[in-house]
Amino acid sequence: MTSQAAIYRGDRTFTVETVEVPAPTAGQVQVDVAYCGICGTDLHIYLGHMDGRVGFERTIGHEMSGVISALGDGVTGLSVGDHIVVRPLDHCGDCPACRAGHEHICHNLTFIGIDSTGAFQQKWNVPAHTIHVLPKDLDLSHAALIEPLAVACHDVDRGQVKPGEDVLVIGGGPIGMLVAMAARDAGANVTISEINPSRLAHAEGIGFAVMNPKEVDVARAMHDATGGKGADVVFEVSGTQPGVDLMTAAAATRGRIVMVAIHAQKPQIDMFQFFWRELDLIGARVYRPEDYDRAMDLLARGVVDCDSFITDIQGLSDIQSAFEALTRSPNAMKSMIRIQETA
Amino acid sequence: MTSQAAIYRGDRTFTVETVEVPAPTAGQVQVDVAYCGICGTDLHIYLGHMDGRVGFERTIGHEMSGVISALGDGVTGLSVGDHIVVRPLDHCGDCPACRAGHEHICHNLTFIGIDSTGAFQQKWNVPAHTIHVLPKDLDLSHAALIEPLAVACHDVDRGQVKPGEDVLVIGGGPIGMLVAMAARDAGANVTISEINPSRLAHAEGIGFAVMNPKEVDVARAMHDATGGKGADVVFEVSGTQPGVDLMTAAAATRGRIVMVAIHAQKPQIDMFQFFWRELDLIGARVYRPEDYDRAMDLLARGVVDCDSFITDIQGLSDIQSAFEALTRSPNAMKSMIRIQETA
Repeated sequence: MTSQAAIYRGDRTFTVETVEVPAPTAGQVQVDVAYCGICGTDLHIYLGHMDGRVGFERTIGHEMSGVISALGDGVTGLSVGDHIVVRPLDHCGDCPACRAGHEHICHNLTFIGIDSTGAFQQKWNVPAHTIHVLPKDLDLSHAALIEPLAVACHDVDRGQVKPGEDVLVIGGGPIGMLVAMAARDAGANVTISEINPSRLAHAEGIGFAVMNPKEVDVARAMHDATGGKGADVVFEVSGTQPGVDLMTAAAATRGRIVMVAIHAQKPQIDMFQFFWRELDLIGARVYRPEDYDRAMDLLARGVVDCDSFITDIQGLSDIQSAFEALTRSPNAMKSMIRIQETA
Repeated sequence: MTSQAAIYRGDRTFTVETVEVPAPTAGQVQVDVAYCGICGTDLHIYLGHMDGRVGFERTIGHEMSGVISALGDGVTGLSVGDHIVVRPLDHCGDCPACRAGHEHICHNLTFIGIDSTGAFQQKWNVPAHTIHVLPKDLDLSHAALIEPLAVACHDVDRGQVKPGEDVLVIGGGPIGMLVAMAARDAGANVTISEINPSRLAHAEGIGFAVMNPKEVDVARAMHDATGGKGADVVFEVSGTQPGVDLMTAAAATRGRIVMVAIHAQKPQIDMFQFFWRELDLIGARVYRPEDYDRAMDLLARGVVDCDSFITDIQGLSDIQSAFEALTRSPNAMKSMIRIQETA
């Protein structure tokens, strides 16, 4: 069987090619991919930052939705025609992290769509254990937001956000916005710190308190707005030195700071504040199965305004221009590829 | 009534003077101080690092033991003659930290013996709420270790150390050693990383695994010794850049890192490891009342070999030479002042 697939060839280039797709093997299912969003990590790959890990022959993509088209031997509980999303993690089951029950951060984790073949293609074979079945009435373009929303649900769960707490989200990009929505749904009073005026307007438009650190001292403003307490939970999603400076300055005594961003460099951190005010810094990466369940629930309850969040949808044949546009557009929220269009 | 008191006069100088001591006011008790240990913070004060906070007219000291000599009006539940230690924290009761139940890290905390008059004097008036009564059979020189041991108990509690866990203590000074003893008493397998040969020998002599980071790659050795897992809990007690580099490198996936040290500078921290392995950094400062109870229990059960831990005892009249000796002696563990000697 053949399928159209986008292949990353290095040098900011995708080719869309016809590839041979084998039948699913035992324990696999074959999925007709419907939509696949462009993740920040996909953009890093496109920009050449991860060539050593990804190579130049890989179909990437993992923020997907689709329909099961075939089942390999031994797969139970799933049916052809099921609407599904894939939780793109394959763990070893045998490392210290897996043995301790932390399979999602397995020492030998395969991130499907980065370390192995991904979803920017029409037919995709994946392990059955990665599948979550969707309600049939959920729009499949909306469902392609479940993966990043599951990231946000995991972040909010790691931060143990409670009703009535004051939350500061540093960085109002796609993940920051989804974290803000999930935290608000958990009952928190959410403020977003962001420097991009378009993103600030978007966040304000859907009801969040916003602050621009280029215009106000966000830490002082958070303390002032909370009777001198500060933010009970801070999500650092900016990946910048000013972001980590703000996270310790804005947090309440005994505040929890969730490290969502990927800091490739080692920033300077105000360790004295961790000691002095007994702060707690909590790392958060990807998601556990229950985070997918929470994300599906949030989506079903309309917590995310998907139509305003999805800022662009292109066909698979236009994937190159979709990535090019995203690198030029700091205002975009979620760009998505409609995979079956070119079938 | 008069009392001999050591007064910090700046410029690495204590004077021992006769001072007038008023009767205890309502809610206060008067204590005949028996012993007072020299804390690392006292050494910082002596070296002039905290002149702005302390001034040049203060009697410092807070690692003390003593006997109640008088009670102010309205004090109940305490008696003249009681052997006691003071938990030297006075909180405001009205700030966000106090209202949230974190009185020990009150925003307006008075640390008695730093921010107000301390225990390097014969007669000391303190708020009754700071008093913990000792069993009469506890040696008062040993009891003067309760304050630093309560720090260690608080650190181990913040790290939630569980039986069978692998613990790495970075820095084998007095607090690091007490943390190691408290963690071992909690059932952990404790390794101490330290560069001073004398301290390494002392730690090894009382049964701890030790590593010298000048000789071995401690992070690799911790992972090798634990089947690739790493340290479940790391205590950073060194206050150095190599220490914070080691803390992230040696920790297990989902490991807890307790920040015990005071980092006056902002070190560079490997934030990527917090994200990638979902590490947890937990600040820990001073103690809560229950940490004093735990410390008294540990001391009563002989968890600390006090006689080897207390490396020097001088009289109050020799406090100047005791501080001078401590600045010259990287091998000393706990130096203590016998307060009543010059009475």
